[in-house]
Amino acid sequence: MTIQLSGAGAPTTSDTDLAGAIRRVLDGRWGDVRDTVRRELGSADWSTPTTPLPVADYRERTTGQLSRLLAEPWMTAGFSAEPGEHGDVGASLTAFESLGHVDLSLFVKTGVQVGLFGGAVAGLGTERHHREYLAGIADGTLLGCFAMTEVGGGSDVANLETTATYDPATDEIVVHSPSPAATKDYIGNAAKDGTLAAVFAQLVVGEGEAARSHGVHCVLVPIRDENGRALPGVTLSDCGAKIGLPGVDNGEISFDHVRVPRANLLDRFGAITDEGTYASPIDSDGRRFFSMLGTLVRGRVSVGGAAGAATRNALTLAVRYAAAREQFTRPDGESGIRLLEYATHRRRLLLPLVRSYALALATNELVEDLHELTSGAGDGGQGEPDELAVRRLEERAASLKVANTAHATRTIQECREACGGAGYMWENRFGAWKADSDIFTTFEGDNTVLLQLVAKGLLTQYKDSFDSFDTRSMMLFAARNVAESFVERAFGGSIVQRLVAGAPGRDADNALEDRGGQVAILEDREEHTVATLAARMRALQGDDTDPVDALGAVQPHMVAAAWAHIDRLLLEALAAATESSAGPVRELLGRVCDLFVYSTVEDNASWFLEHGRTSAAQSKAITTRVDELCAELAPDALTLVDAFGVADAWVGCPLLERA
Amino acid sequence: MTIQLSGAGAPTTSDTDLAGAIRRVLDGRWGDVRDTVRRELGSADWSTPTTPLPVADYRERTTGQLSRLLAEPWMTAGFSAEPGEHGDVGASLTAFESLGHVDLSLFVKTGVQVGLFGGAVAGLGTERHHREYLAGIADGTLLGCFAMTEVGGGSDVANLETTATYDPATDEIVVHSPSPAATKDYIGNAAKDGTLAAVFAQLVVGEGEAARSHGVHCVLVPIRDENGRALPGVTLSDCGAKIGLPGVDNGEISFDHVRVPRANLLDRFGAITDEGTYASPIDSDGRRFFSMLGTLVRGRVSVGGAAGAATRNALTLAVRYAAAREQFTRPDGESGIRLLEYATHRRRLLLPLVRSYALALATNELVEDLHELTSGAGDGGQGEPDELAVRRLEERAASLKVANTAHATRTIQECREACGGAGYMWENRFGAWKADSDIFTTFEGDNTVLLQLVAKGLLTQYKDSFDSFDTRSMMLFAARNVAESFVERAFGGSIVQRLVAGAPGRDADNALEDRGGQVAILEDREEHTVATLAARMRALQGDDTDPVDALGAVQPHMVAAAWAHIDRLLLEALAAATESSAGPVRELLGRVCDLFVYSTVEDNASWFLEHGRTSAAQSKAITTRVDELCAELAPDALTLVDAFGVADAWVGCPLLERA
Repeated sequence: MTIQLSGAGAPTTSDTDLAGAIRRVLDGRWGDVRDTVRRELGSADWSTPTTPLPVADYRERTTGQLSRLLAEPWMTAGFSAEPGEHGDVGASLTAFESLGHVDLSLFVKTGVQVGLFGGAVAGLGTERHHREYLAGIADGTLLGCFAMTEVGGGSDVANLETTATYDPATDEIVVHSPSPAATKDYIGNAAKDGTLAAVFAQLVVGEGEAARSHGVHCVLVPIRDENGRALPGVTLSDCGAKIGLPGVDNGEISFDHVRVPRANLLDRFGAITDEGTYASPIDSDGRRFFSMLGTLVRGRVSVGGAAGAATRNALTLAVRYAAAREQFTRPDGESGIRLLEYATHRRRLLLPLVRSYALALATNELVEDLHELTSGAGDGGQGEPDELAVRRLEERAASLKVANTAHATRTIQECREACGGAGYMWENRFGAWKADSDIFTTFEGDNTVLLQLVAKGLLTQYKDSFDSFDTRSMMLFAARNVAESFVERAFGGSIVQRLVAGAPGRDADNALEDRGGQVAILEDREEHTVATLAARMRALQGDDTDPVDALGAVQPHMVAAAWAHIDRLLLEALAAATESSAGPVRELLGRVCDLFVYSTVEDNASWFLEHGRTSAAQSKAITTRVDELCAELAPDALTLVDAFGVADAWVGCPLLERA
Repeated sequence: MTIQLSGAGAPTTSDTDLAGAIRRVLDGRWGDVRDTVRRELGSADWSTPTTPLPVADYRERTTGQLSRLLAEPWMTAGFSAEPGEHGDVGASLTAFESLGHVDLSLFVKTGVQVGLFGGAVAGLGTERHHREYLAGIADGTLLGCFAMTEVGGGSDVANLETTATYDPATDEIVVHSPSPAATKDYIGNAAKDGTLAAVFAQLVVGEGEAARSHGVHCVLVPIRDENGRALPGVTLSDCGAKIGLPGVDNGEISFDHVRVPRANLLDRFGAITDEGTYASPIDSDGRRFFSMLGTLVRGRVSVGGAAGAATRNALTLAVRYAAAREQFTRPDGESGIRLLEYATHRRRLLLPLVRSYALALATNELVEDLHELTSGAGDGGQGEPDELAVRRLEERAASLKVANTAHATRTIQECREACGGAGYMWENRFGAWKADSDIFTTFEGDNTVLLQLVAKGLLTQYKDSFDSFDTRSMMLFAARNVAESFVERAFGGSIVQRLVAGAPGRDADNALEDRGGQVAILEDREEHTVATLAARMRALQGDDTDPVDALGAVQPHMVAAAWAHIDRLLLEALAAATESSAGPVRELLGRVCDLFVYSTVEDNASWFLEHGRTSAAQSKAITTRVDELCAELAPDALTLVDAFGVADAWVGCPLLERA
């Protein structure tokens, strides 16, 4: 392998035709929605401000934007107020995700209102709730909260403390916070705007000896009157300043024996009958809990998508700066050296850039899957979709939520640093993107918790191993019958299948240069990692150790397995998009795909070496090849970021004038 | 190797005696100064506020703090206003670094005033400048700017555009910004407080044909009158909001033919004689430039030290939270699982924790070296110190600046995420620490540029290879005579020497378990990386390639060599401190040292595998051993952060009450 020394310049112009063609690939099935967002929200009054606003002003701005946004039919297309109708879910999710380009406070505020609060009413409620509330939620006249997280519980939702106790004497439900730890925390819309809260609580039904908790359910509780005052028994407070998301009014809510009618129970998965007894279509408390949390899947898809969008903003700005900005002069003293001519600078920007391509394409596939599943192509949209398909979707939503948000945190930081002192000025927005998206690694499922959930999902195809999210189940899991691991094609379907079928074996010398071979290599890593994880868990089964210690012994391995899975998912989406293209698009995407694969293998070089997948010489050659591919891709870097289709108003700033 | 499953609990209490004993080790030679800072500045009116302040209020607060601080004799002990006197440099640097625990705006504001502006006058000026200015700089009656960076030039200081042209007709120097790109940018104290600026400019001396630039020099230019108005010919503007450091008034300065007396040239390294000719004790423009930049060394040491201090704040808070906070319950349902019981959580906190130990100890050694060199133990403090010793010190200052600041950016982020949603609340200060320290990777030498400087320094012990900082020299360097690489003991001296001498060979099976063997392993990595870098540069020498491409081909290798060097420096300091201790301190530091070594080898596992230093089986065993060591260290985690000696007021926050 030789070092590529020619053609290594930085780009000065972008091939706009090619960028447009690639943009159509990246925009995906709902490209028209993306164009609408670019057109309708592509102005400074929508985008993240370039000077910091006081929290009160930012909140007012975001609340105003939300109500204007909810008046747009294209925004709420997926949120039908008609009972039983789903609307165009894919269009709605695409519009929602695109808010990540515009302003993340607006994205989260909208997500709280429509995705979480609205999603709880739509997904956990039944027809009468839909009739009563969905129209107001969709047009913004009824602003609400999604009151799940508690001070004490954090990620441990199954064990939250708030109670919802049925009182047959009055046919009411009594919602109560039994301790300070039961206070609902970080709740969006709680500090200022919300009037109704979807409260997650342990539902207790039955009198005296017969009283029994049926696990977590969701109850609608009015929290504020029309003058913004807390209702009797409800205590509301303001979380105050956060690292980011200044436009979102997060607050705390606690309840002192607050009474609501029985009808306020969102009773799709668990109801209180007219006779005052509990009834549910799902027998197991654990599986019911899991089904209810399943309504979070849209939120996870969207958080991942919006993190991806914000990251593409940051990359657009940093690559444009790197293509224009000169630092130091050539030895001839005549001309400057542009940042993108430096090998270290190419690495810091182009490696995240190609990963952003893979993430965007995989997220598109996920949105399509969710759309198809929700629309229920097979049953006219009315029936319940296949449970296994739902779980796979949830696993992929968790995977891409982690992948997108971890990538955002790392990449936006890298982009800031790559723009030097200029990147530190607030006016260029790196600070806002970083601060706003920072919490994305934590909310809608903490990434570390989700990675373990993903790993658990990989361990078996048998649904009875999936009882619940909690640690107890994870720890007891080792005692169950663990099926052999398997790799199931997630994205790209038949295209990727065909690639792999025609590929050289993973051990062939040219496997990394062949598209199918590339997929086979990442599949092999996933398969091996999951299989050895299963073996370790089985081995621990006989051990007489503390289950927490036993979990500890495999936890880093679980995380590694989840990442191996994620990398494979991303490659499938990128490879499928590449192989479905033609001409210059296919050629350029092919180089993007190559760099993604080589850099992923390089990132995990120790695994490939430790498991005999690469020799020392091959491993070194891969590093060299990453440098070469970066040099080959650098002249097209501007085209690649132009293809992201980020509106000027979202990234326009003084930084480029300085370059 | 077996999996350690016992003793893996999280700590509930700290061993305060042991923490105190370790604190004395970490505090080092100027521990009394650290105690003074804890006592004098350990209150809420000094520490970073727990609610965001508007920029104007924060600036006023910081300016007020600066003037109170400069009234403290222990703060300015190292900054003697007496010509030729150096004061207690080590005490002063230690006090200054400790401001990183208190508030980073205050640290930077003080650094601009005393370290940079004061440092320029003290280091580049001569007796008459010292007499005229140092007293006012030290007591804060004369606030000033360090006007080096320009909009266009960024890191390329040697080619900055501002000119300082001697006019013999009036015996004045004319300071001028010939283009918008020459505007001085991001200059601290420029937006509001500074009245005098130390301006770096190309010094032009001689008339007509004989006019010649002598390279970058520093001239004192008054910029503001007593009413805060810009002086004639001076344009001042405000950089406005930044990602962090709200208390520092950064601004821009440009000059339109501003005249100052010839005496305003800081003329230690280059003067204009009474005859109007240029004279310098250093012949080479490049070497003179290098000498002048050498005055930046204190700034680099301090920025690294303060980043380290802020990181220890973040770790203190995150570890205390992890030791107290429960998430999910044990399978028996009886008790919760504390975060520090999770293997993934231990990894995310304990690996940076042990690196923080190594960084703190190495930074202490660096401060001692700088103190000794400046105090000039050998020559009564009056003479010029040995040039080679100065360069080594500068190389180590650059190394630790990069190591400390990169570690801060990564670790503060990790600590925020490890505290979940609570970590996102402003009141806990993670946001401020992250935002304020963010720019540290860029200023006082961009980390990527410094890493290449470090690598260049490693390539040779011959001083004539060090002509200047610029890319031209770096690229032409390959054409020079490259000495064989060498590893020179930096920290720990004879203790580490003795360890290595008695160590098993680096290939011995037990090398990693032996303190000397550990050092030998990291030395070997450095030596090999530097030697192969030298070989690659030699090989490129004959090539007929564009020098920029040639540099690109080795740039990632240069960065890798610098990191190998840094890891070795850190281990030397940690190993020396461990081996100089006794009893329980030595035992605990030994485990810290072990985890540092194993995790460093794990981080670089692909290098060790690719170069035949570890087998696949050994490499896997190292990962297992890291998990084991984390489990073994977890019960002492509280003791280890208590030993940082962070005052309650600096990290006290609502987060721990929530845990």
